[in-house]
Amino acid sequence: MSTLSFTVSGMTCDHCVSSVREEVSEISGVTAVDVVLESGALTVSGDNVDPAAVLDAVDEAGYQAVVS
Amino acid sequence: MSTLSFTVSGMTCDHCVSSVREEVSEISGVTAVDVVLESGALTVSGDNVDPAAVLDAVDEAGYQAVVS
Repeated sequence: MSTLSFTVSGMTCDHCVSSVREEVSEISGVTAVDVVLESGALTVSGDNVDPAAVLDAVDEAGYQAVVS
Repeated sequence: MSTLSFTVSGMTCDHCVSSVREEVSEISGVTAVDVVLESGALTVSGDNVDPAAVLDAVDEAGYQAVVS
């Protein structure tokens, strides 16, 4: 179990937060996802989670993420 | 068939637009709903649509509307 931290840009409201949370939650191995609208902080917990898959999931949701 | 015009405040992204569109589309008699994010313009077409029901639907979606 490990935790990965990212910063997401472009989220403007709670709907955006939900979109990111939903996409990232679908990634294999992910057990918990925390997203903070104001800071853009995205914290992903799980087993053997691929950071690139997280970046792709955020992109799929329509936002940009960087590892933080 | 008539058209009602409103101005919605508080929408920040396309998810907000979708929320408003979905709630307003459920109102009895409504046949078309147009929402413009940038201006907040909400145009509702239909038969015997109750303007108060539109205001309530926008409130339900989490935003504020006034007749324009």
